[in-house]
Amino acid sequence: MFRTTTLALAVAGLAACSPQTASDASANITKSQQDGSGFDKTLKEARIKLDAAMSAPLTVPVPKDPGGGYTHETHKANFSLMYDAGQLYELTGDKKYADFAGQAMLDYADVYPSWGLHPAKKEQSPGRMFWQNLNESMFLLHVAQSYDAVKEALTDAQREKIETDLLRNMADFLSVGAPETFDKVHNHGTWATAAVGLTGYAIGDDNYVEQALLGLDKSGEAGFLKQMDVLFSPDGYYNEGPYYQRFALKPFVIFAQAVQKNNPERKIFEKRDGILKKATYSLIQQNYGGLFFPINDAIKDKGIRTNELLHGVAIAYELTGDKGLLSIAQEQDTFVLTPESRKLSQDLAAGKATPFEYRSMRLLDGQRGEDGALDILRASDDPNDQVVVMKHTSQGLGHGHFDKLGMLYYDNGSEIIRDYGAARFLNIEAKYGGHYLAENDLYAKQTIAHNTLVVDETSHFSGVTETGNKFAPELGQFVTTPDLQLSSARTSDAYSGVELSRKTAIITDAAFSRPIIIDVVTADSETTHKYDLPFHYNGQLIDTNFEISADSQSRSPLGKKNGYEYIWKTGQAVPVNGLSQLTFLLDQRFYTLSTATPDNTQVLLAETGASDPNFNLRREPALILRADNARDARFVTVIESHGEYNPTLEFTVNSHSSVASVSHQQETGYERIEILSISGKQVTLLLAETTEEFETKDASGRTIKWRGPAHLIKSE
Amino acid sequence: MFRTTTLALAVAGLAACSPQTASDASANITKSQQDGSGFDKTLKEARIKLDAAMSAPLTVPVPKDPGGGYTHETHKANFSLMYDAGQLYELTGDKKYADFAGQAMLDYADVYPSWGLHPAKKEQSPGRMFWQNLNESMFLLHVAQSYDAVKEALTDAQREKIETDLLRNMADFLSVGAPETFDKVHNHGTWATAAVGLTGYAIGDDNYVEQALLGLDKSGEAGFLKQMDVLFSPDGYYNEGPYYQRFALKPFVIFAQAVQKNNPERKIFEKRDGILKKATYSLIQQNYGGLFFPINDAIKDKGIRTNELLHGVAIAYELTGDKGLLSIAQEQDTFVLTPESRKLSQDLAAGKATPFEYRSMRLLDGQRGEDGALDILRASDDPNDQVVVMKHTSQGLGHGHFDKLGMLYYDNGSEIIRDYGAARFLNIEAKYGGHYLAENDLYAKQTIAHNTLVVDETSHFSGVTETGNKFAPELGQFVTTPDLQLSSARTSDAYSGVELSRKTAIITDAAFSRPIIIDVVTADSETTHKYDLPFHYNGQLIDTNFEISADSQSRSPLGKKNGYEYIWKTGQAVPVNGLSQLTFLLDQRFYTLSTATPDNTQVLLAETGASDPNFNLRREPALILRADNARDARFVTVIESHGEYNPTLEFTVNSHSSVASVSHQQETGYERIEILSISGKQVTLLLAETTEEFETKDASGRTIKWRGPAHLIKSE
Repeated sequence: MFRTTTLALAVAGLAACSPQTASDASANITKSQQDGSGFDKTLKEARIKLDAAMSAPLTVPVPKDPGGGYTHETHKANFSLMYDAGQLYELTGDKKYADFAGQAMLDYADVYPSWGLHPAKKEQSPGRMFWQNLNESMFLLHVAQSYDAVKEALTDAQREKIETDLLRNMADFLSVGAPETFDKVHNHGTWATAAVGLTGYAIGDDNYVEQALLGLDKSGEAGFLKQMDVLFSPDGYYNEGPYYQRFALKPFVIFAQAVQKNNPERKIFEKRDGILKKATYSLIQQNYGGLFFPINDAIKDKGIRTNELLHGVAIAYELTGDKGLLSIAQEQDTFVLTPESRKLSQDLAAGKATPFEYRSMRLLDGQRGEDGALDILRASDDPNDQVVVMKHTSQGLGHGHFDKLGMLYYDNGSEIIRDYGAARFLNIEAKYGGHYLAENDLYAKQTIAHNTLVVDETSHFSGVTETGNKFAPELGQFVTTPDLQLSSARTSDAYSGVELSRKTAIITDAAFSRPIIIDVVTADSETTHKYDLPFHYNGQLIDTNFEISADSQSRSPLGKKNGYEYIWKTGQAVPVNGLSQLTFLLDQRFYTLSTATPDNTQVLLAETGASDPNFNLRREPALILRADNARDARFVTVIESHGEYNPTLEFTVNSHSSVASVSHQQETGYERIEILSISGKQVTLLLAETTEEFETKDASGRTIKWRGPAHLIKSE
Repeated sequence: MFRTTTLALAVAGLAACSPQTASDASANITKSQQDGSGFDKTLKEARIKLDAAMSAPLTVPVPKDPGGGYTHETHKANFSLMYDAGQLYELTGDKKYADFAGQAMLDYADVYPSWGLHPAKKEQSPGRMFWQNLNESMFLLHVAQSYDAVKEALTDAQREKIETDLLRNMADFLSVGAPETFDKVHNHGTWATAAVGLTGYAIGDDNYVEQALLGLDKSGEAGFLKQMDVLFSPDGYYNEGPYYQRFALKPFVIFAQAVQKNNPERKIFEKRDGILKKATYSLIQQNYGGLFFPINDAIKDKGIRTNELLHGVAIAYELTGDKGLLSIAQEQDTFVLTPESRKLSQDLAAGKATPFEYRSMRLLDGQRGEDGALDILRASDDPNDQVVVMKHTSQGLGHGHFDKLGMLYYDNGSEIIRDYGAARFLNIEAKYGGHYLAENDLYAKQTIAHNTLVVDETSHFSGVTETGNKFAPELGQFVTTPDLQLSSARTSDAYSGVELSRKTAIITDAAFSRPIIIDVVTADSETTHKYDLPFHYNGQLIDTNFEISADSQSRSPLGKKNGYEYIWKTGQAVPVNGLSQLTFLLDQRFYTLSTATPDNTQVLLAETGASDPNFNLRREPALILRADNARDARFVTVIESHGEYNPTLEFTVNSHSSVASVSHQQETGYERIEILSISGKQVTLLLAETTEEFETKDASGRTIKWRGPAHLIKSE
């Protein structure tokens, strides 16, 4: 198992994407500049890297290895070098970079035509240089840009050879040679069409451009424009979620930029009300602490510093001049070798940044915005403040997880109620070659791995993606008023014969030191079921209002299938007077979950890591509220962020919850949630399905009139 | 269990110690200034706080509550206010602060004489205002300084009343009234003598000063000077470890500063070769990533930002002018209300900081430096580079842990092989009132909770502090040459009939990308034993060279007593060809432990958290190497820090260990450790007990001569 693979070339190739430097001093000094970062540093580092690479002849190995292997990584490093050389020539005018890039392309042109399909080819969409043609598209996307930059410095004979034996040969292979990818409305198709289209612009062949934009038959039924129409929702949400949206974004913005430059009359960035700008903005909105919301298959370390979004932000800034994007660039603290990125760095150094406008929003899912939505509720525009993310989206295809109505909750810069993300160690050979682990399907995708209701220990749609793909939740009201924000949705599709509903609000009231979350999860059925509501909390358990019977001398898995087998049961308890309270501590702040539970609810304490002989899972705790043998179930949870634990100054304040009781009543046409604080203050949240007017009595018996879908009766 | 305690006053009182601001712009802008921090901010915040406090009369409640309770926290907040008012008067000259402080003292003088012993008094050393007189000393230490600052602004009558009814009354209570604390050579005695001595200076009564310095009978057998002689080793190491050293430091430096000012002829800071400066420097050296090495009972969040070290660094800078201390102040990023702290902030803002000189060092323990040592090996002067800490110290009294020859290993800003520290949630009421938990004695202090050899599942000295107090390890050689550093020690006292020895080196060789640790642990006995060597590693298990038989369907505690009952067994395995290799990942870096194990060694994988019904323990993994039924045992471990996992740029390099084999041979008079790398390079470390000359053959058969205690034969 212990073997050393040298990926030094790959790293060299990628180093150009690393942190960098600002050019000059200014009154408004930013952190990036202090560190000597900024675009100038990017440029300097790229020159150093290229100068080193140019001292030795390029190695162009005969294709042999699959992803991660030597020939794979070498060709990846090579296209990165060629791309950087082209950009450096354009940015500096130094001809040695053009000569290097040209010679590298000639070296490839010498051998590429003779390469048949890759010996380790993937069955679907095989490549010639790489095992899959997705990588070949990436190669061409970068090399076509480089060629466009350096061709003026090459001789006619060199151009002829490169165009014929490398660029056209590869573009043909990726277009007419692979129609099943090229004409597919899917992100692999975006990479292919973008690469071929960029080649068309670079060599002046409109046929490639037309095919790229409109599909092989130029009907517009396939191709890049069609993908722009279909792959994003009208709000710029990408059906698989932000992790894959990031990946898809790069070919979209890079090729669109070329279209804008070469065919401005197409007004490509205005299409669909500026869908590519919307896609970039929506991706930024889907981050917390610099990392993307890890819904569906997502490596949790990915965020706004990824190369794709470095390009995306630079291009969006070029298009919009929105100075809020400079704040994002500041957080990225990394630049790429493009004039747009240089401009970003310069304007940032000049102190032009304004805060990025983070806000609560409902991002509709589906081509026509009819397939659910991702709801983001932010307690304020401070990116480190409390945020609730409700996954009321459609399935998200093969990378989708089975978590309809799922919740994520962030505060103080961290995940607090969290999603496991993907079970995968990207590129780590010892962990199943860096691929998705078996635990991804078996645990991470299952409903119990998320913060949403599980019925009868079975995942939504019985864990069948094809079924999931057919349905999206029915959206309820979405409200964003100053002291009351609300996300709501329901679904009858996740389980046969059970309707699930969730309404989640952030409210502000003087009874609580910070805004609180009120989360109402309901299940309705005509038959009895076992209902499990998990909260995968992040932190050290501090206190509970119930007596725990702990599994402290032996542990067993919580169940046998559907992900339950990966969870240890660590304890159980009974709620006190129908209220379950659990307080935990993370990063010197306390959190309490106070849930009004259905009758006969059992509290389970749990921890991931059972049935895990290869130690593939992280160990994370969970609180699971279980209502067994019930027709209907209603869990009303208040989430509080409170107090401070300060070991440096040796004080602790407000380590206890301020919630004394939580109650729920179903009234005619609406429901009433009452929260009584320890100090005797009462907050009432009224929730209706409609926007009609209701009359109700407040805590002091006064009749008040209000309109649905929601009304907050404050404590004072 | 859910109850809200309002500690707002306490927080207000402590807020003066929070982050702050620099005064002016300069070419060399530091982070502190950008954030608007520095001394000016401290001053501004203190004024805001005081101005608010001065708008209402001071509350002086009759003593009632124990630590954490209302009256306790109020008196704490009050002395903090009085201290700040005094400092503000001195720094700003604004008489309103003197008036406020004077009135507050008069308010206390009104009532203090009438207070008998505290109703919730601790049995040992009870107080009157507080439950223990330690807090009363803290009160007087702060109020005496305030009085010294404001007395010039008071009337004769006011001075008379304050001196008689508050200062003398309390000083008498703490000195002649509590000889068992005042004359005890212990940190509580330091607080008492410092408080009484400061009172003497403030009111101009030399008798208090003499008693403080020399003990009640002024013989010098007790008192502050005696404490300076006894409580620190000649190297400035404090016997209980850095967590308690921090606590003890404040009265030492505050009172010594007053002695220096009032009795410069005493040259107090020159005593014992500058022991108080040494104590401050040694405390700084005992941090990693800003946090103290958590040996013995230690809350792991405590570090160089604590109030005690803010004063310590400011005073040390005043004394030495060492610009390296400015780097520490920069990391502290917090200032206190003293002229010394202001100077620190100004010089930092003026760009005078140089790097603090972190270096490898042996800090001898014991009054005469004869009771072992804390060895610190640093791979470089970069504070975030690899550091090995070897605990070859004495027991450390009641807060000591049973971990002779224990190891800590740091890299990349984090703990990698770690110590559990104390089992305690400081000031968190729900966790046993914030006191040390039962698990502190039962788990955290036990040997198995540390990274050192356990014999027969029993802790060192059978877990008896009194026995531990009698012995210290016998120190071996300590070497700090550029490519080879060595710490060594042995003990025959931890277990009857078993001699334990440990030699730990950091070496640099081209066969490895970074310096590696070579750790040789041996046990020798005439009878057979079970030897367990735990490594409490921090990170996600990535790979092993052995097949794990995992406890994936049920788990049981590893043992029944001596801390073993708090550890789950999670798997077991057999080393491959006598080599056990385990790779884990933390913060995008890989670490591999490669151990040449004794015959018949069993590998155990473990995790803390068994027998923990109150969920008091953190969940942390461990690797335990067990050689059972053996007379002697020798574990030779190579610790590598290697590679990089970069999910943002999507590459992973050197995720595999570079160690192919590790061998150990006992030669006549010395031992030979050979490490063969994957690329076929051999590194040989020769270790002798003496400094005599030896002859040996290198890998190519050439005879070389070398001298003990250590010699490195490099791979090239």
